[in-house]
Amino acid sequence: MTADALNAPTPAFLAALRDRLGPQGLREGDAAAPYLREPRDTSQGQAALVVRPGSVEEVSHIVRACAEARVALVPYSGGTGLVGGQVRPEGPPCVLISVERLNRVRALHPDDDAMICEAGVILADAQAAAASVDRLFPLSIASEGTARIGGVLGTNAGGVNVLRYGMTRDLCLGLEAVLPDGSVFNGLKRLRKDNTGYDLRHLLIGAEGSLGVITAAALRLHPRPAEISAAFVAVPSPAAALELLHLLRGRVGEQVSAFELMQGSGIRFCLDEIPGARCPLDPVPEWSALVEVGGGAGSGAAEALEAALEEAFEKGLALDGALAQSEQQRADFWRLRETIPEANRKIGSIASHDISAPLSEVASFVTAASERLLREAPDIRINAFGHLGDGNLHYNLFPAKGRKREDYANIKPVLTRIVHDLIDAHGGSISAEHGIGRFKTADLVHYGDPAKLAAMRAIKDALDPAGIMNPGAVLG
Amino acid sequence: MTADALNAPTPAFLAALRDRLGPQGLREGDAAAPYLREPRDTSQGQAALVVRPGSVEEVSHIVRACAEARVALVPYSGGTGLVGGQVRPEGPPCVLISVERLNRVRALHPDDDAMICEAGVILADAQAAAASVDRLFPLSIASEGTARIGGVLGTNAGGVNVLRYGMTRDLCLGLEAVLPDGSVFNGLKRLRKDNTGYDLRHLLIGAEGSLGVITAAALRLHPRPAEISAAFVAVPSPAAALELLHLLRGRVGEQVSAFELMQGSGIRFCLDEIPGARCPLDPVPEWSALVEVGGGAGSGAAEALEAALEEAFEKGLALDGALAQSEQQRADFWRLRETIPEANRKIGSIASHDISAPLSEVASFVTAASERLLREAPDIRINAFGHLGDGNLHYNLFPAKGRKREDYANIKPVLTRIVHDLIDAHGGSISAEHGIGRFKTADLVHYGDPAKLAAMRAIKDALDPAGIMNPGAVLG
Repeated sequence: MTADALNAPTPAFLAALRDRLGPQGLREGDAAAPYLREPRDTSQGQAALVVRPGSVEEVSHIVRACAEARVALVPYSGGTGLVGGQVRPEGPPCVLISVERLNRVRALHPDDDAMICEAGVILADAQAAAASVDRLFPLSIASEGTARIGGVLGTNAGGVNVLRYGMTRDLCLGLEAVLPDGSVFNGLKRLRKDNTGYDLRHLLIGAEGSLGVITAAALRLHPRPAEISAAFVAVPSPAAALELLHLLRGRVGEQVSAFELMQGSGIRFCLDEIPGARCPLDPVPEWSALVEVGGGAGSGAAEALEAALEEAFEKGLALDGALAQSEQQRADFWRLRETIPEANRKIGSIASHDISAPLSEVASFVTAASERLLREAPDIRINAFGHLGDGNLHYNLFPAKGRKREDYANIKPVLTRIVHDLIDAHGGSISAEHGIGRFKTADLVHYGDPAKLAAMRAIKDALDPAGIMNPGAVLG
Repeated sequence: MTADALNAPTPAFLAALRDRLGPQGLREGDAAAPYLREPRDTSQGQAALVVRPGSVEEVSHIVRACAEARVALVPYSGGTGLVGGQVRPEGPPCVLISVERLNRVRALHPDDDAMICEAGVILADAQAAAASVDRLFPLSIASEGTARIGGVLGTNAGGVNVLRYGMTRDLCLGLEAVLPDGSVFNGLKRLRKDNTGYDLRHLLIGAEGSLGVITAAALRLHPRPAEISAAFVAVPSPAAALELLHLLRGRVGEQVSAFELMQGSGIRFCLDEIPGARCPLDPVPEWSALVEVGGGAGSGAAEALEAALEEAFEKGLALDGALAQSEQQRADFWRLRETIPEANRKIGSIASHDISAPLSEVASFVTAASERLLREAPDIRINAFGHLGDGNLHYNLFPAKGRKREDYANIKPVLTRIVHDLIDAHGGSISAEHGIGRFKTADLVHYGDPAKLAAMRAIKDALDPAGIMNPGAVLG
């Protein structure tokens, strides 16, 4: 079934929905505009109606109505996705369904290391709810003040703590979701072990709204580390950063919570573009790592980090470094790291890539990629940064100083192809944590496994025969 | 599509398979008998031919041939599954496909904490391969000397280290599998982050061979704990055992590797039935816990365990205890725990249940279940044991001394219904780690979520329209 078979909603269809949902459940005209904006302004969404259901029953009603009328339905959570999954610029007008009113933390179960959150709960609020019962919900991403639980599940978000705690899917014990026929999947059990049939949870997580609307989740909590320690370390190269990571893990094992790589260009972007930004090290290192460890009270995590760094200096794996002496200083380290995307936006990238490779391949990828790219476009500026501990880099390309991204419009597809071909050749992924959305559907077809793509298509057609759920996303 | 539409293999079909696979690739007559045996002898399998492909290409050929001829295909790995998933007693004769000759460890990647194993690698050999590069493959189950990687993935096996390291699915980074149309899914990337479309890996894991034949996996490795310490602790009740677990996790966090519960009846079964078995504590406690912690060199895991136990004694959570003073003693503790299933088999259970509940519900379930069951059948003996840290109990019922399991044949379904109704009411699962197989398909229909069951059926029909893959398993 293709999107061609979809219908524009009729006036009668829209009137019936308006009637059912009431003014609180609708956004139209100017009030609908924010829901149609792509975060990097690269495309413009459209919708016949924005609906804001206030209950799972209302979600089910909306889905069923769209399925019967063959009207496209686009799920919208926090709106922060970077691959256009929540923005439908083309095709018959859709209904956009925002989960923002499903915003209750339904239950906290600290003894089970679990909590039940609805899809519209903002990620930062979910973190706070966990902290209120002395637990950690470890998912942490730059957009956590805006992103909502439904979207982080739909896209299987990653972030800075994946090294220790896994992706969003690893933090989800169970789901409640409305399937494309309007039926409600009640899968909110908070069990660590439950081998009862196909894992529908893992199929819906990361399906980017193309197989249903997630309405709530049983989320997995962890003990809150009582001792947290962070260091900002200048390293001679990405290869040395990886050796430092192995050294650290050998000493403190699973207590390494985050291991972020930053390139000098990215830090300089922050210093140039963001008022008040400052680098803990002077001069700005060409490569640096932001390392965080956390353990229970008396775990000695801080001492272990310090000892590991001393060893790293002796071995030449660290050139300079600052150990956070206070919570404030630790927050400052992180603010610099989290400011890089904002600085990138201000400068305006030619092309950005969210890639991953096996750890053992990252350093050789970085070397090969910059060599190939600079041969093709000698004046571009490369900013590679991100979650090195997971092999995940945001590999972004910028115009030379004084030039504009538009100057490189012709060469942009060539540069992206170079990056993606190389990461593929290194056994990596062309979408580590952002997903496919609408921007990477052609890449998925090009780099994806044909048997997997055929299976995905068969599953999509089986669960959503009318093709209403987020058409154009993931499968194109 | 139902199994009714399946065909018995014709002589020509079998001759062509024999021809293609050669003598090494076949088992017939007496040589086929071991593949048709159910481990607890509760049913008898049948097959027109047992095939043993030596390559992924041969697997693909066999699957394609069966799909074209609509001949049932039953995957067989180590043969240790306890729910009949590998044993097809009825329906048109099938082809049974053993993965035992796909038994290479294809690659070891210690720097990536990964290894590539084929489906026929025995679990204990996979553990040894990881150890050979100073890494841990933490999956550990009683049958690890016989179970093979394909089967532990197909059933999403659990075991004693789930508390710390997760289920089999949490230890799998990628899969290679032959799908029901014979196409090969090449998904062996060893990435921690890869958001490129639906997660086919998690769909195949736990599908019990009903969606394809897993041929290889990229498995996730962990650092090997340098310091391991274990204790055998008498506790006043399951509720106290759970409090001890919380106390321990508060002190040593993620370093708690295992937390097993044993009931006095189970230990006495071992002492009665297994020559040489002995209990570290005298008298045999009514409830005891086997606790293991592990950390890096200098992590102080052993001291932390000892300190936590002292606190537990003061709080009345521990009544007696033995701390392993040597590797030998630690192995002895585990041998007693791992001998319980063998002793159970010798006595012969009336009914056995593989159940899980949220931790906060386990103690009240145990109390309510024994009360209800003993009202129904006052002379039965209950042996509840297992992976308390995950909320997973093997809850098995035995005849009174001097009586036989057959004496309880009439009441068996009533007892099982009591156990399953109660665990369901406590938010638990009727199959925590063994899966559905053929023995629990009716339970899945009874206790499963209807929307999930409908989605499972739709997925099965979409990926396996001829219904050849392990018919009768999971979906009945």
